[in-house]
Amino acid sequence: MPDRLQEGDLLAAVDLGSNSFHLVVARYVLGQLRVVDRLKETVRMASGLDGKGGLSKEVLQRSLDALARLGQRMRTLPEHRVRAIATNTVRQLKNPQSFLVPGETALGHSIEVVSGREEARLIYLGVAHGHPPGRRRRLVMDIGGGSTEFIIGQGFNALERESLQMGCIASTRRFFANGKLSHKRWREALTDVSAEFQQFTTTFIARGWQETLGSSGTIKAVGEVLSAMKLTRGAITPDALGELRDELLKASSIDDIKLPGLSDERRPVIAGGVLVLEAAFNELRLSRMQVAETAMREGVLYDMLGRVTNQDPRDASVAALEERYGVDRDQAGRVEQTALALFDQVARRWLLSDEDRLILGWAARIHELGLSIAHSQYHVHGAYLIRHSDIAGFSTTDQELLSSLVRCQRRSLPSGLINELSERNAYATIKGIMLLRLAVLLHRSHDPHTLPDLQLLGTPPKLQVDLPRSWLDKHPLTRNDLEAEQSYLAEIGIELAFGPAD
Amino acid sequence: MPDRLQEGDLLAAVDLGSNSFHLVVARYVLGQLRVVDRLKETVRMASGLDGKGGLSKEVLQRSLDALARLGQRMRTLPEHRVRAIATNTVRQLKNPQSFLVPGETALGHSIEVVSGREEARLIYLGVAHGHPPGRRRRLVMDIGGGSTEFIIGQGFNALERESLQMGCIASTRRFFANGKLSHKRWREALTDVSAEFQQFTTTFIARGWQETLGSSGTIKAVGEVLSAMKLTRGAITPDALGELRDELLKASSIDDIKLPGLSDERRPVIAGGVLVLEAAFNELRLSRMQVAETAMREGVLYDMLGRVTNQDPRDASVAALEERYGVDRDQAGRVEQTALALFDQVARRWLLSDEDRLILGWAARIHELGLSIAHSQYHVHGAYLIRHSDIAGFSTTDQELLSSLVRCQRRSLPSGLINELSERNAYATIKGIMLLRLAVLLHRSHDPHTLPDLQLLGTPPKLQVDLPRSWLDKHPLTRNDLEAEQSYLAEIGIELAFGPAD
Repeated sequence: MPDRLQEGDLLAAVDLGSNSFHLVVARYVLGQLRVVDRLKETVRMASGLDGKGGLSKEVLQRSLDALARLGQRMRTLPEHRVRAIATNTVRQLKNPQSFLVPGETALGHSIEVVSGREEARLIYLGVAHGHPPGRRRRLVMDIGGGSTEFIIGQGFNALERESLQMGCIASTRRFFANGKLSHKRWREALTDVSAEFQQFTTTFIARGWQETLGSSGTIKAVGEVLSAMKLTRGAITPDALGELRDELLKASSIDDIKLPGLSDERRPVIAGGVLVLEAAFNELRLSRMQVAETAMREGVLYDMLGRVTNQDPRDASVAALEERYGVDRDQAGRVEQTALALFDQVARRWLLSDEDRLILGWAARIHELGLSIAHSQYHVHGAYLIRHSDIAGFSTTDQELLSSLVRCQRRSLPSGLINELSERNAYATIKGIMLLRLAVLLHRSHDPHTLPDLQLLGTPPKLQVDLPRSWLDKHPLTRNDLEAEQSYLAEIGIELAFGPAD
Repeated sequence: MPDRLQEGDLLAAVDLGSNSFHLVVARYVLGQLRVVDRLKETVRMASGLDGKGGLSKEVLQRSLDALARLGQRMRTLPEHRVRAIATNTVRQLKNPQSFLVPGETALGHSIEVVSGREEARLIYLGVAHGHPPGRRRRLVMDIGGGSTEFIIGQGFNALERESLQMGCIASTRRFFANGKLSHKRWREALTDVSAEFQQFTTTFIARGWQETLGSSGTIKAVGEVLSAMKLTRGAITPDALGELRDELLKASSIDDIKLPGLSDERRPVIAGGVLVLEAAFNELRLSRMQVAETAMREGVLYDMLGRVTNQDPRDASVAALEERYGVDRDQAGRVEQTALALFDQVARRWLLSDEDRLILGWAARIHELGLSIAHSQYHVHGAYLIRHSDIAGFSTTDQELLSSLVRCQRRSLPSGLINELSERNAYATIKGIMLLRLAVLLHRSHDPHTLPDLQLLGTPPKLQVDLPRSWLDKHPLTRNDLEAEQSYLAEIGIELAFGPAD
């Protein structure tokens, strides 16, 4: 990694949550992160969802305004020191680009979408760093605006991760759409939420844990109310939660909710949050939950710290995929070596970044993943596995890039996919695809034979692979394949020549 | 298996090859199969392919006429004693139903399509039964009209299987389209074929074998020509094959080929066949190939024999999938038990067969396969894996059925998929889907708790699940799920009631 983190450098994480957006800025001091700034914007993005994957104009504008304000704070930070993560609400959008493109402009940084289970991993990481873990297993719960995450972890590792479509905004809208509250409505809603929980509680209970922590604004607010009600000193217990719920249900509508210590900002979404929390206490048989001070945003920071200090969690995830699907590691290693050697020849000229190099290397390591399903169309199967698997450390955006590279490693380039690559990724991705294809082609025979000295000259749309004529003459099959590659690349307007350079 | 094979019973296999159709009828005597009849029809189906997945009218008619003649021989055989297998040419069809539907009518039996690798397994099984295997590893090669299969096996088990789009008709059309022959054209074609072989030869050579057998009409014909040329006593060696090729290339066009012992029927397709054989000898460094007397059709017979004598290879394949993808076997067992208990209650009334019961049981065992990819949409991922994996013993048709059941195990029923199920499968499949859904729903909590006595009454489109009211009252979540199921089934016109029967 050429760009090492220096003492005093800043890192920033932005969490584009469904209820609020958070920015946290930290300074790297003596090998640790020290938070130097926090900003919060209550955007309530999930309330703008129309149920069909659209976002209301008003909420879109509110979100962009908030991002612009957060962006102002980060103006001086370089791109690779910032990670902005979007979660459930953006996952629900039919056309996420309609939000991401103006959002990135407003923020001044790119925004990545993460899956629910990756979100769960980052939450656990954040909570573990705020509350140093012992050797005991922990349950961590986080009630977001749109989704709720449950994690069992030990040390800094998440062992079980679950993400359900059931956050405080979403549940309030679903069960109390007209704003009316009653004990009867509450009981019915509790049955529905508990039914959703059943799909994972057996597994979780079988795994077991010794302590429970809750992060998120909802859980913090509940802790504060219980403390203000003098029921506990801030922790959450089933009895105290029951009293809070009864107190809450004294109001017959959401607007009338009166709970000591509850902010006006939290009132509109507290009913759904308490409902989800009560269902969790019942179904997971919780006796006590401690309120966590840290959350996903801190997890994102520590994940970045790992990435830049050579403990990139994505390396371990790729190795786990190789293991699970029985990849031929010799072949993967040969393709990786050649792909990266070609990358290093052209990186500066083709304006490729260190991150592009990482993605290319990982794609090379798992390009044959799909062989575990079937030989025929294995590149398509591999792309499917990569796109849909839960791969720790990777954002959905990363996974799509990786999947595209694997999909396009051979045969004709699907024009639909090439067109779909979002604007900001298309440039680097198509270049990565060309490098991977060339490496796969040169090692097609799966032989351990070494390649001759090889130079990749030119810049797309005009390339030349410089190969000794004598070698080509001895390898007519590679010559055949290079000729076929000329036709494939010509279809996307790229001219490939091969043979000795003039 | 209620329907056991009796001494003296007949079994028949039909191989709808790309070059010719074969029927073989065998009698079950003393635990063995004794072939009692063989019929061959040279249809040359692959020659009717138009390169875009269409089949010429003339060849379609020729195929149907041939099937009608074969069907006449089997008129008295019950459906479950016949397997008719279609291979590469039908795999190439854009709309296989356009051939299968009239084909099944002509034959009077259903026709299954198998994948190239399943074809390879059946070929190996056929050759192994005709040439009792010792302890040595064997390479078996079969040059069909449309595809060529390579297998390394030991005993009766195939260890490596490969199927390439390169049969005697396909290669003759591809490399000698205008019928002209020359040494130069031959060399170029050999380079192209060898390039295709490179994708698997390294793996095969690394695995190794001690003897080589070749099945198929092409290889038999080559053996006969070599014997007639007095070059060998019927085996194929590199030197003898070289002499045959030089003799063949004395003709400047296909029509002029003159080889001793070559039938007129074989002449039009021998050039492509010898080409593929020569490439195989080169790339796999073969020194001698013995001509096998048996082929895929015998493999199909022995596969059927296994199925009806409780050695169904599909059981082992399903167990291998469970193992590979780490299925929760307790849960799979619970769902299987309930699904089959429901099946047994309705089988007679719903006109379901023993084969339907097998498919339902396997679907239950692997319904959670997709969890290995991701929790979200796991039924879709499982269906993908089942549809695309190479699963020994299953025809493509079987796999599609199994995949449809897994796909439809929960949530709303994709109307497209339901409509796509081919006529002959839709009836049983939709019923299987209903039984599996009910079993999955009842075990959704993944608890080891036992279910109450349960009766499934009625016949689609009107069903009643008879459950004690006291049990339902104690299981409000199951009640919730059954209510949701009512809506899902209503979408496909099925009325579901539940609770105690009147």
